Amino acid sequence: MEKARVIELKQSVFKDNDARANELRKELKDKGVYLLNLMSSPGSGKTTLLTALINELKSTYRIGVMEADIDGDVDANDIIKDTGVKAIQLHTGGMCHLDAEMTRQGIEGISLDDLDVLFLENVGNLVCPAEFDTGATESAVILSIPEGDDKPLKYPLMFETVSLVIINKIDVLPFFDFDKDKCYGWIRMRNPNCKIIEVSSKTKEGFDQLVAYFKERVNNYKTK
Amino acid sequence: MEKARVIELKQSVFKDNDARANELRKELKDKGVYLLNLMSSPGSGKTTLLTALINELKSTYRIGVMEADIDGDVDANDIIKDTGVKAIQLHTGGMCHLDAEMTRQGIEGISLDDLDVLFLENVGNLVCPAEFDTGATESAVILSIPEGDDKPLKYPLMFETVSLVIINKIDVLPFFDFDKDKCYGWIRMRNPNCKIIEVSSKTKEGFDQLVAYFKERVNNYKTK
Repeated sequence: MEKARVIELKQSVFKDNDARANELRKELKDKGVYLLNLMSSPGSGKTTLLTALINELKSTYRIGVMEADIDGDVDANDIIKDTGVKAIQLHTGGMCHLDAEMTRQGIEGISLDDLDVLFLENVGNLVCPAEFDTGATESAVILSIPEGDDKPLKYPLMFETVSLVIINKIDVLPFFDFDKDKCYGWIRMRNPNCKIIEVSSKTKEGFDQLVAYFKERVNNYKTK
Repeated sequence: MEKARVIELKQSVFKDNDARANELRKELKDKGVYLLNLMSSPGSGKTTLLTALINELKSTYRIGVMEADIDGDVDANDIIKDTGVKAIQLHTGGMCHLDAEMTRQGIEGISLDDLDVLFLENVGNLVCPAEFDTGATESAVILSIPEGDDKPLKYPLMFETVSLVIINKIDVLPFFDFDKDKCYGWIRMRNPNCKIIEVSSKTKEGFDQLVAYFKERVNNYKTK
């Protein structure tokens, strides 16, 4: 099996992250590549969800994945093994988030030339990644049932900055004290307009809706 | 019910965090207060575990709790309601971690005068809190089963800096693909000497061992 390339990211020295993010977003749009920045706590199931989603989308789009991690390179290799799409590993060297310049370093490593959709799996962290615009077309957060219904209450900025909240591991709902009504209320308090989709990467519950959502977003993006 | 006092932490301006942490540790020792810095991902069950642990320890020790959060003040109020011990809420104002100076600000708010044991529930984050010595007597990390067995592989510093790893939510092990042997191997790779204890805050499995561990640590600390 081909092994994922590993890119050691350098810490950004640029102060104007927002401007650089907007530049990157424009470049992506010009090249017709839709970049999704996927954020969550450690262990919310980002890689497993991405794998399942890519397997649904890969006959329609040319897909790439950038897996950011502090250390380790299991995720990108798993993605390659389980989906066959192009994936690289980004090592942050201890950094707790990605910004636009770090995202650009990753993009230079994977190349946009033969892609329609690029997924960025951000560092597992509900705090810092929300503070930095990566330049992505869209940002999403995964909240998994075992983490508890109160996360939108405790990590406001994360839930304020995304346009999509994916509630994952919905299959284990019966085993946890997770109040869906409360959770939806707190998500809506932070973000009245975001889309909320419930899924299980294990049972594939909700994946039809998630796939339809992405297809609509990507198709609108590429035709407008 | 008495409501928890909320302390708005100010960002530290001190460069010499390690020196300030050692100073705080010495002061705690002089006053005979054992401070545990408890870290984990969001949603690993820190507050529920602390509540259960405090209920086991409160007849033996005078206990205080500092609950650090970016926002919200549910945790400290829950602790007060469910245990009756002294608890305060620390708001970090968006900051992703605590350092020694911020911990000192909390301690000034709760006072050490009538305490034997003080718990610091750090910000839910597996990255940044590990980078800053809080001045605590001991640091522990909670890893919950739903987060997956590979967290020690992906968040090296967190597992290197603690003396205790608590594997929580062991009751839901049958519902997740969590390989305990692999997990122990990765914890040992990061930290050959730390103590590992498996518990469930729900079923109380493993709590005898956790309580015995703390009693031994606290008693040794107070008599030496």
